[in-house]
Amino acid sequence: MSTEKNYLTIAVDSKKAANILKTVSDEKRCQLLLKIHDVLKENADSIKQANGIDLKESIEHDLSSSLIKRLDLFKGDKFEVMLKGIKEVIALENPTGKLLMKRQLDENLTLYKKTVPIGSLLVIFESRPEVIANIVSLAIKSGNACILKGGKESVHTFRIMAELINSTIESSFEEFGIPKASVQLIETRDDVNQLLAMDGYIDLVVPRGSNALVKRIKNSTKIPVLGHADGICSIYADKDLDSYVEQAKRIVVDAKTNYPAGCNAVETLLINKSMKNWDELLKALINEKVTVHLMPDVKSEFFRLNPDYENSNYVVDVDQKVEFDQEFLSFDIAVKFVETIGEAIDHINTHGSKHTDCILTENEETAEFFLKSIESCSVYWNCSTRFADGFRYGFGTEVGISTSKIHARGPVGLDGLVTYQYQIIGKGQIVGDYVGSGGDREFNHKDLEI
Amino acid sequence: MSTEKNYLTIAVDSKKAANILKTVSDEKRCQLLLKIHDVLKENADSIKQANGIDLKESIEHDLSSSLIKRLDLFKGDKFEVMLKGIKEVIALENPTGKLLMKRQLDENLTLYKKTVPIGSLLVIFESRPEVIANIVSLAIKSGNACILKGGKESVHTFRIMAELINSTIESSFEEFGIPKASVQLIETRDDVNQLLAMDGYIDLVVPRGSNALVKRIKNSTKIPVLGHADGICSIYADKDLDSYVEQAKRIVVDAKTNYPAGCNAVETLLINKSMKNWDELLKALINEKVTVHLMPDVKSEFFRLNPDYENSNYVVDVDQKVEFDQEFLSFDIAVKFVETIGEAIDHINTHGSKHTDCILTENEETAEFFLKSIESCSVYWNCSTRFADGFRYGFGTEVGISTSKIHARGPVGLDGLVTYQYQIIGKGQIVGDYVGSGGDREFNHKDLEI
Repeated sequence: MSTEKNYLTIAVDSKKAANILKTVSDEKRCQLLLKIHDVLKENADSIKQANGIDLKESIEHDLSSSLIKRLDLFKGDKFEVMLKGIKEVIALENPTGKLLMKRQLDENLTLYKKTVPIGSLLVIFESRPEVIANIVSLAIKSGNACILKGGKESVHTFRIMAELINSTIESSFEEFGIPKASVQLIETRDDVNQLLAMDGYIDLVVPRGSNALVKRIKNSTKIPVLGHADGICSIYADKDLDSYVEQAKRIVVDAKTNYPAGCNAVETLLINKSMKNWDELLKALINEKVTVHLMPDVKSEFFRLNPDYENSNYVVDVDQKVEFDQEFLSFDIAVKFVETIGEAIDHINTHGSKHTDCILTENEETAEFFLKSIESCSVYWNCSTRFADGFRYGFGTEVGISTSKIHARGPVGLDGLVTYQYQIIGKGQIVGDYVGSGGDREFNHKDLEI
Repeated sequence: MSTEKNYLTIAVDSKKAANILKTVSDEKRCQLLLKIHDVLKENADSIKQANGIDLKESIEHDLSSSLIKRLDLFKGDKFEVMLKGIKEVIALENPTGKLLMKRQLDENLTLYKKTVPIGSLLVIFESRPEVIANIVSLAIKSGNACILKGGKESVHTFRIMAELINSTIESSFEEFGIPKASVQLIETRDDVNQLLAMDGYIDLVVPRGSNALVKRIKNSTKIPVLGHADGICSIYADKDLDSYVEQAKRIVVDAKTNYPAGCNAVETLLINKSMKNWDELLKALINEKVTVHLMPDVKSEFFRLNPDYENSNYVVDVDQKVEFDQEFLSFDIAVKFVETIGEAIDHINTHGSKHTDCILTENEETAEFFLKSIESCSVYWNCSTRFADGFRYGFGTEVGISTSKIHARGPVGLDGLVTYQYQIIGKGQIVGDYVGSGGDREFNHKDLEI
């Protein structure tokens, strides 16, 4: 346990383990994961007992019922789904060692570009204890060592699962050569803060939890962070939408109501002033009990067209200073008129969180311009923002959703946990033999088939 | 000029320009670059005059002759090479809009993964004024806006070149639609510090200059930095090298002496204790006037085998505390014995700067293990570390060399200035229609030919 170790040791051990783990074959990594699967399954009773202690303490500490629900690892088929998840990760394609480029620089001098594990990951998550199995599978499958920090409410469940995982790795070291420090558990927020400073050893931080958690972490480390603090997604309803209003209504309603707590739910609706029947969109939302937060001009025009809505509780004024820059995460949406598509694009690039945005239009040229102009990781034409999800993208699994500009963006699959490396295999070549560096040989730069 | 603007305006203008620039076609971007090329060529006399002022002031301020040489834009064919460089960038393949993935999620619901510009770049360089033309070409070619900061010694040259570039962009706005703020010049270090805090607007920082510059920038921003502070490259001479010593000698000498100031020059030589004729490597280096900094056991063994070298000025003790962790950038190399390849790998992953490292061996299995184990961006088998270079890799141009774990690694071509974006084109689909979210439709996740 981390309390007996100093932070430097944890970070150094993790990096050392990573450098061994990445030399182990995918086959062996998967065999270890299968063993971990079996050990967790065999020890379901002990895990349930530990989970019971966490649940009991949470009830004693009067935690919220939704949190207690997340903590309960044996509610419904959650434990079985967790075990199944390990097998699903095992079945994924090996993300490491993929050849991305093969180029002959000269005779017997070949450049390779290959995917390789990133190294050491620090993964911080909140109450759901099943995440430990998911993260351990993803990390080992992709050849990365991980340091895990779970929520303090689930410490007993985490501890026993980590012990089972660690002892399995340790006892099968002879067989697979995977070091025990490939998975390390830390327990306190102070541990996390110390490790966030170890940018010489830890290569990537993956926070999985609330916006507050992600923001706090992004602000306190120089290590790259894979995650998103906000999901301020917008839909822009264009003027050229005449025969499309029915579909537009369905999309807006789905994007808002299918799962409002999701980061890919829509928070802002921008309506082109020249759109016909735009008020249908608002009525569709109100009919589904969504509160529409309207700009003054939208409101007065809406009431002029629909005087019977004047007393509706679902129509309120938008608070312009804050409501275009935060997530509602509820049955609420902010609504604004724009004069042009340019105004819509400006609004989204300024107020959005670069997560997922959508245009509704029948005009292909307009759509192409929108797709090109929006900075976000995902940008859609005529479908719900809720599609932004690793499973829906067909990634097999989702490591998280990233709103970064570089590395992994949008829904991130296993390939977000690898990077690449250049390798050259030569036969004694030196640069001094080549033109420009003292010699007369020329490079041929011939791309070879992969 | 930046002095009249506040930093927020510079950053906001850059981001706005980036979002327009990225919608402009490659053809138009290249036509603008050609105009810039012509304007710089036509105004060679005025640029030379300004450059003369910088040179005069540098001599008055008694700056070093190497710096003055770098400042002189009209020495030899430097100015012509600069102009030719713009045309070479124009000729490169368009790095944006490349389709990386096309996947049918369902009928009429298609997911695209495309390369897109990163956005706004802050590029900081030192004295060489020709870099401005290079960076402007790379940025505009890749659809990115840039904010440029040159060295203060070349301020007159930069200023006139920036004015020529800016007025060309402005006067051809009607024709190409590229905003003037696509290229902005800032002049003082204070400007840079203010802009390094604008992580909401600036997407990538590219420092091109000394280690000190890169280190300072990495330590003072949350914006991702594309660069390398150090190039601590190592060569490991394995035990299985019997018939290979002649080639090994050439490689070690080339990697050290071809251009010792280069970041890809070798700084550390690790020798397996069981290698036969290992002392030949040291003698080859000494014959080329390289000072070998030896560990005590290497030194005593070397003198035992070669007593005639005992009085050589080229043999000194290594300062173990510092010399394995810094670049010499001169005709010096640190030398150490290792017992095993594992020890060599540990040394490199601990003391190296993750730039470029090489194994010399005849044993394929050993080589494969080394290639897999080293964390660096480039790792070689049997060739000189000096091959780590964008031109030698066949990238056509080099934005810089990066030692990051994520995004662009190793020598970085134009593709280091792009990222990717997911786009979905649908026909009104909503998530609520699909299994798991309320409906009964299934995704088909069929990869389509690109």
